[in-house]
Amino acid sequence: MIKAGIVGGTGYTGVELLRLLAGHPDVEIVAITSRSEQGKSVAAMFPNLRGHLDLNFSVPDIEQLKTCDVVFFATPNGTAMTMVPELLDAGVKVIDLAADFRLKDKDEWAKWYGMEHACPELLESAVYGLPEMNRVEIAAASLVANPGCYPTAVQLGLLPLLENNLIDSTNLIADAKSGVSGAGRGANVGTLLCETSESFKAYAVPGHRHQPEIVQGLKNMTENQVGLTFVPHLTPMIRGIHATLYGQLSETGRDLQMIYTQRYAQEQFVDVLPAGEHPETRSVRGTNTVRIAVHQPQGGNTVVVLSVIDNLVKGAAGQAVQNMNIMCGFDESAGLNNIAVMP
Amino acid sequence: MIKAGIVGGTGYTGVELLRLLAGHPDVEIVAITSRSEQGKSVAAMFPNLRGHLDLNFSVPDIEQLKTCDVVFFATPNGTAMTMVPELLDAGVKVIDLAADFRLKDKDEWAKWYGMEHACPELLESAVYGLPEMNRVEIAAASLVANPGCYPTAVQLGLLPLLENNLIDSTNLIADAKSGVSGAGRGANVGTLLCETSESFKAYAVPGHRHQPEIVQGLKNMTENQVGLTFVPHLTPMIRGIHATLYGQLSETGRDLQMIYTQRYAQEQFVDVLPAGEHPETRSVRGTNTVRIAVHQPQGGNTVVVLSVIDNLVKGAAGQAVQNMNIMCGFDESAGLNNIAVMP
Amino acid sequence: MIKAGIVGGTGYTGVELLRLLAGHPDVEIVAITSRSEQGKSVAAMFPNLRGHLDLNFSVPDIEQLKTCDVVFFATPNGTAMTMVPELLDAGVKVIDLAADFRLKDKDEWAKWYGMEHACPELLESAVYGLPEMNRVEIAAASLVANPGCYPTAVQLGLLPLLENNLIDSTNLIADAKSGVSGAGRGANVGTLLCETSESFKAYAVPGHRHQPEIVQGLKNMTENQVGLTFVPHLTPMIRGIHATLYGQLSETGRDLQMIYTQRYAQEQFVDVLPAGEHPETRSVRGTNTVRIAVHQPQGGNTVVVLSVIDNLVKGAAGQAVQNMNIMCGFDESAGLNNIAVMP
Amino acid sequence: MIKAGIVGGTGYTGVELLRLLAGHPDVEIVAITSRSEQGKSVAAMFPNLRGHLDLNFSVPDIEQLKTCDVVFFATPNGTAMTMVPELLDAGVKVIDLAADFRLKDKDEWAKWYGMEHACPELLESAVYGLPEMNRVEIAAASLVANPGCYPTAVQLGLLPLLENNLIDSTNLIADAKSGVSGAGRGANVGTLLCETSESFKAYAVPGHRHQPEIVQGLKNMTENQVGLTFVPHLTPMIRGIHATLYGQLSETGRDLQMIYTQRYAQEQFVDVLPAGEHPETRSVRGTNTVRIAVHQPQGGNTVVVLSVIDNLVKGAAGQAVQNMNIMCGFDESAGLNNIAVMP
Repeated sequence: MIKAGIVGGTGYTGVELLRLLAGHPDVEIVAITSRSEQGKSVAAMFPNLRGHLDLNFSVPDIEQLKTCDVVFFATPNGTAMTMVPELLDAGVKVIDLAADFRLKDKDEWAKWYGMEHACPELLESAVYGLPEMNRVEIAAASLVANPGCYPTAVQLGLLPLLENNLIDSTNLIADAKSGVSGAGRGANVGTLLCETSESFKAYAVPGHRHQPEIVQGLKNMTENQVGLTFVPHLTPMIRGIHATLYGQLSETGRDLQMIYTQRYAQEQFVDVLPAGEHPETRSVRGTNTVRIAVHQPQGGNTVVVLSVIDNLVKGAAGQAVQNMNIMCGFDESAGLNNIAVMP
Repeated sequence: MIKAGIVGGTGYTGVELLRLLAGHPDVEIVAITSRSEQGKSVAAMFPNLRGHLDLNFSVPDIEQLKTCDVVFFATPNGTAMTMVPELLDAGVKVIDLAADFRLKDKDEWAKWYGMEHACPELLESAVYGLPEMNRVEIAAASLVANPGCYPTAVQLGLLPLLENNLIDSTNLIADAKSGVSGAGRGANVGTLLCETSESFKAYAVPGHRHQPEIVQGLKNMTENQVGLTFVPHLTPMIRGIHATLYGQLSETGRDLQMIYTQRYAQEQFVDVLPAGEHPETRSVRGTNTVRIAVHQPQGGNTVVVLSVIDNLVKGAAGQAVQNMNIMCGFDESAGLNNIAVMP
Repeated sequence: MIKAGIVGGTGYTGVELLRLLAGHPDVEIVAITSRSEQGKSVAAMFPNLRGHLDLNFSVPDIEQLKTCDVVFFATPNGTAMTMVPELLDAGVKVIDLAADFRLKDKDEWAKWYGMEHACPELLESAVYGLPEMNRVEIAAASLVANPGCYPTAVQLGLLPLLENNLIDSTNLIADAKSGVSGAGRGANVGTLLCETSESFKAYAVPGHRHQPEIVQGLKNMTENQVGLTFVPHLTPMIRGIHATLYGQLSETGRDLQMIYTQRYAQEQFVDVLPAGEHPETRSVRGTNTVRIAVHQPQGGNTVVVLSVIDNLVKGAAGQAVQNMNIMCGFDESAGLNNIAVMP
Repeated sequence: MIKAGIVGGTGYTGVELLRLLAGHPDVEIVAITSRSEQGKSVAAMFPNLRGHLDLNFSVPDIEQLKTCDVVFFATPNGTAMTMVPELLDAGVKVIDLAADFRLKDKDEWAKWYGMEHACPELLESAVYGLPEMNRVEIAAASLVANPGCYPTAVQLGLLPLLENNLIDSTNLIADAKSGVSGAGRGANVGTLLCETSESFKAYAVPGHRHQPEIVQGLKNMTENQVGLTFVPHLTPMIRGIHATLYGQLSETGRDLQMIYTQRYAQEQFVDVLPAGEHPETRSVRGTNTVRIAVHQPQGGNTVVVLSVIDNLVKGAAGQAVQNMNIMCGFDESAGLNNIAVMP
């Protein structure tokens, strides 16, 4: 039984961490912090936890957090980097669900996140927490940068093609659709039910922070140059990301279905669908599973990959728990075995 | 480890039973039947089960079902009654999720369900599977009639008031709202997304089959006459029932909050909210929990009870598993411990 | 062609007024005010108006407003009362869509709205703008208090029963369900899509501001005492109110269907459905129509009335335009003839 | 005042035609046919039409249809082609909202629609009813093939780029998302609320009937070869299509914003958004407008076009009315002036 702390627990990523960790056989949650909700019962804010978790929000206290075995940051970007060095010095393992340690280049980070990085010296040693790429490094890591939601869906969708040099990596297109929970639990007009229900739109077409994160990841899969057009969209549902990925095959005649199936044969959270099928986001809702289908319409030169995740689970809290399991030597699926509720 | 069979597994109640039983520590599913889908993989129809359940639909075979310890019927009304006597004779425990054994009066049953009952002699011995009322009888039963979704929410909401003779039982109002999954997985124009989304309506105001079922149950809670106006509504969401219950208090000055809290103190699936709160259906989505709040607006004579369930869990498959647990001597919450996914 | 001004145009009531007035044959919109959005194009905020309305938000200017023939207030409660006296003195007709002039009793108003009334001397002369009750008074009025959304649906549903002394007016129940737009366009966590979609709940059961407004209106329909239990609910859709109304008939054998049909025979915005039917909120979406059905389940003593409106049209902006039409001598349906979009 | 008939009026395209024609100043609807609903009041099936249209469904009667000035077919594919020749011979103008006359090549048609064409000799003379491309031909036409919903959004989005030879036409990608009403009003499990709400998926990636229709249209815009990958998706809302279109610019430095603005300057139903904006489907709901934005992310070589329509209006019934207006010499926007309801 390890002790876990969560910094910043009032958002959607926070409640999802609580749900998963409350049911984890090897974890005791000892602290969940929130300045604004100090003293309030967690179950009063998130009634799904009534009867499952008896804990109050507390003010962040670095000394208390140092007594944890692992600390999760579910904070806005720019917060974790101010506390992480001290926790690492105290021997605490850290998993940051925000973007503070995702990019390796501090200038690139500063450009996209609008501030100077507080501890750029940690960027190199932080491990990018995509287990299907970096399992060995994660197992040895003290600091894991948990991937973004879109980057998880896109990278796992393209991985087999890039690793095998099957596509022109300079001209990739990722057309991604997200449920509204990806925008967080902040009080914004733009994410009201009346503004987002019964409508569909693209956003941030000129540039989105997940684009450089994805490109950095794709570059680790190939020796070639990488060019990516990334267009995110808002879709009227709570959870789920569907990435539709397009590339030009550099050689024909390869059995893409077999290549995908073999690449992920040992990955318990990646499910490659039978040929010709289309994954639905609801089939992974509340779970840590990625479902992927690969198509080559009319046998042509364009490959189309469909990749779906739950943005709050495999795209955030679930992947964080998976990373914790690897870092702590637990069964990789501990606490992550629930079945999606359908319908 | 007991052997369980499910007759009629292609509807929403069926897939929910599969989800719950696939994660149950003491149950092996040995048969799931469907004439129309014979031979098809369960996971091909319900992709949430991919990787969790390796089973194909089969044609109903009474000999195979006789080898089960327990058989669930998730069939249309009128099917279970044709097979149940033979299964009971073979010593199989039966839980019927349809309405075949819910009413004690065969003429009443015939009137509301439009056919003669095939085995009226079993109506008396069948136990109405509402554990919070009939736990002892359920433990000893061979045949359990699993309650309807609306009846579960309404009866548990009114139980403490009627047991304590606190309201005029001749003039009760149950204004109930259900998600669309309550109408089942049949191909009907009336439950298309385009017909039910972004709209709200009442239905069956002249008369609904759950009305006599509720009245029968309420009569078991009081020695007085029972009069009930029941109005169901369709609300644009997948899961959830919210019953708003109105009654006239026959005496004032009683601490209703305490009466509810005490009545359900030992019930792990009934959660009485603190005074002044309002339950949300999403807080019980995918779980077997009932959440109840009791109000007395402006200290007047009218009591208002709010009662929410997931119609497919506590209102169907979850309550069936709870009944099975009681019948088989398992922990009553085995397989029913998951936390609702929020948001 | 009259000149109209709108004070406070950035909420849902504001944009709905703009949509209706932009298509009105007899009205020119000369000012739409908003302190926060000053100078911004209306169409930039509400893209449905692109190409239909070329106007910018301006700071409220009392001198400019005095040049209008009619001024609408679509402001938060407590704003209109600070400007109305000066406008009336200048001969401007005023329609307040907020609650400032709805209650006749200033102490009652202060109790429910949490502030002292700024011009209580106007409360008596203000006309409550429910045309089906007060058409003659509206035609002669300078100041109209536009009814609340719930009060419109409830009062029109109960009117024929109370006018004819057919029910026990001391024990009325109004179980009302509203779409989320009723909560306005403010940035609140409680109305995010992720908080309100796929869920249903009651709110404000201990007391809601619309309760005294409804009671005041009902008292004008009968000489008897009035007692009302009012329970509002939030339903996961954008627009629409469904009021389910319950009462005990004081005499039996009356043809309720005929009474409703005759009462509303001349009302072009009230549609009484054929016997046995159930209105859907979507059938009135975007329109000024009320649809009503009256039921007497199983011929018993309880009458159940179903009443649906679009909360932003007949429950707000549409009724305001209807009132304007009456006050200005236009055809009562001018600008209000569009057909609901279905599906 | 012309006489119009509608064959096949019980689907979503049919009710939308009724809504638009009921408010059209120059049209009298004289017949609306449906074999299955013969004799039933149109308003009983579509309650939004109560009070606006007093008409019953009738059995299709070719003699009655010959007395019309214009006949709309809102039938399944393969029906119109059996009746159109006789109507044309009688001098009736015909607008087919199904696919019978969209493709010029009868073998291609037979391949995608699974039957032989009944009157292939009409394919050449039928005019493809996309007014922004073929206005002159439509004005002179007797038979108009109303475009499909996806084809309308995609073709209008790509038109300025192809007409000006600005992109590599051999490698176009159309990632399109549709509301569920695009699947029609048939009773199918796949379009139930419980199957489509809170989920997102692609479908028909191996091949969709709209692909050859789009390619045929694009070929008329350019002298170059055309290659198109078309991927449709189902999004959990009732109405709306959002097409996200990708192409590689063949020359840089051109002012794409100006090219789009100028191309559509005279088109009253095409609204090019200001640079940097993103259209929302809700802004065109219920209207005949297309909203388009053109982006060149980070100044690179890839152009991204966002194109939104209401699939039932500009993608079906609205465009049909626009075509009728052109064919009959009416104002092109007659009956099509309503403003989208927002929120």
